[in-house]
Amino acid sequence: MQAAWLENNTLRHRADIPVPAPSAGEALVKVRLAGICGTDLELVKGYYPFTGIPGHEFVGEIVAAPERPDRIGERVVGEINIVCGSCRACRAGRPTHCARRTVLGIKGRDGALAEYLCLPLKNLTKVADTVSDEAAVFVEPLAAALRIQEQIRINSTDRVLVLGAGRLGQLVARILALNGCELQTAAKYAKQRNLLEKQQISWIDKKAVPEAFFDIVVEATGTVAGFDAARRAVRPGGTIVLKSTYKDALQLNPSALVVDEIRLVGSRCGPFAPALRLLQNGSVDPQDLVEARYPLKDLLQAFAHAEQPGALKVLLQNG
Amino acid sequence: MQAAWLENNTLRHRADIPVPAPSAGEALVKVRLAGICGTDLELVKGYYPFTGIPGHEFVGEIVAAPERPDRIGERVVGEINIVCGSCRACRAGRPTHCARRTVLGIKGRDGALAEYLCLPLKNLTKVADTVSDEAAVFVEPLAAALRIQEQIRINSTDRVLVLGAGRLGQLVARILALNGCELQTAAKYAKQRNLLEKQQISWIDKKAVPEAFFDIVVEATGTVAGFDAARRAVRPGGTIVLKSTYKDALQLNPSALVVDEIRLVGSRCGPFAPALRLLQNGSVDPQDLVEARYPLKDLLQAFAHAEQPGALKVLLQNG
Repeated sequence: MQAAWLENNTLRHRADIPVPAPSAGEALVKVRLAGICGTDLELVKGYYPFTGIPGHEFVGEIVAAPERPDRIGERVVGEINIVCGSCRACRAGRPTHCARRTVLGIKGRDGALAEYLCLPLKNLTKVADTVSDEAAVFVEPLAAALRIQEQIRINSTDRVLVLGAGRLGQLVARILALNGCELQTAAKYAKQRNLLEKQQISWIDKKAVPEAFFDIVVEATGTVAGFDAARRAVRPGGTIVLKSTYKDALQLNPSALVVDEIRLVGSRCGPFAPALRLLQNGSVDPQDLVEARYPLKDLLQAFAHAEQPGALKVLLQNG
Repeated sequence: MQAAWLENNTLRHRADIPVPAPSAGEALVKVRLAGICGTDLELVKGYYPFTGIPGHEFVGEIVAAPERPDRIGERVVGEINIVCGSCRACRAGRPTHCARRTVLGIKGRDGALAEYLCLPLKNLTKVADTVSDEAAVFVEPLAAALRIQEQIRINSTDRVLVLGAGRLGQLVARILALNGCELQTAAKYAKQRNLLEKQQISWIDKKAVPEAFFDIVVEATGTVAGFDAARRAVRPGGTIVLKSTYKDALQLNPSALVVDEIRLVGSRCGPFAPALRLLQNGSVDPQDLVEARYPLKDLLQAFAHAEQPGALKVLLQNG
């Protein structure tokens, strides 16, 4: 089959990859659409060692499921953490921190930038007919945006700042707007600002962000400058949520963190079920974030597009 | 009067300081005992600009109170944050983050390493007769230890590590032991270990701390090495509480914080009332942490003592 192949920080298109065979409990999924995410770009840059097929945002169709042939034909999205169910983290209800996990297209398991992928049946959730492929492909990053409110309480009276209005920042802002909080988004590019305006979400220029003002700041730029801006924007006793993976080290002044009692929260994967509900009931419609679609064979072109400053969602289409 | 005087990172003993006069709402307090804290040592090193009389841990006696002469003679401890009561932080119930605050012996206000100090009457709490001066002088750092459980929930089934068993670490460990959690303390010096053993608190050598093991790690060494050790010891999804102010910058790997969803919480001043209750009901007895007592005139010697590696509480006695 065709697939993206990452090896030694080099991405290439291959057409000689065997179609994977589902292991016990797994299904074979034919990918319909897959998204390129910031983490994929960082993987290529080498923030984490990975050899294989990247990609973890997808919507597809079950084409083989030896243990559940009745599920063949289901249109599905897939939880990307494949977990043991028996380690301390799994038993404590923190399966995404399973010590033995593999992660689709990120850690120890081939991913979604391919014609086919395998995932455990229990990771696959059926998508309602009323949700389009173009919306369903956003379930994984939408779930990641929902993760924030699993980790911290956001009051509807809170002042909240989302720093960065790219692929992930736009989704985070849309999710947080549903909370009713006093939301601002620092957006750099005109197209990002236009998208926010269409959602009635206010934006400001990064330079106009007030200091020590926000109860909660979500850092979604994935840059050291973004983190420093978050540190300036948050009020004493406030919370900074780190939502992006990136390679550069952060510098912190420990005394300032202590004196101002700042809370810093790393945030990764979130729950699929509420993300699907919000797509189905129309509370969130991410389809206008799709900036381009490329056939799988043009994946290098798609990655080059996704790496452009301010780029929104770039999709890869199978067949 | 006699007092410690800090100017241009130089501490000296002065005998020519006028006795302060209480402003509206304030009382004049004759200091009986004052403690030297890590923050005082860091102030002298210049982590924060301060000119004046340092010191914020004390027990004393009200000797003048123009608006409440009935309180003269009360033996008191004092909340160190003097706040406006009307800014956003004060109104939101976060007075220790008052934007206009002064802080006894730390920020904009002379402190407790003196014969006399002034504080607002509302900051002063009467100490029960059954609580000795040697115990009462620990109320401020005990309150700071109690702050942790105002900020994060610690379950009695949690694995908790206190890194550092000095002045503050000992108090934090004693407070956390009352929670019933699975507590470990990384202690470096024999005298620190002996004190923990007397409290039935287990200690380990820093080198023997298991990795990715603890739900909660309290960093009380005030060193970059301590922070790095905390990062190694905390489990994915766990919390690091920063309890010490210090000057050196921390280096953080943002991707690791995000992927492991680590929470970092800066923690400063806490509530006096529960600290006094715990001293009064005997749940905590800090008196064995007193390592030395010096008369106020020997304060330079007292500071030199407090700076020795592994030193516990050094007190300054007035009169």
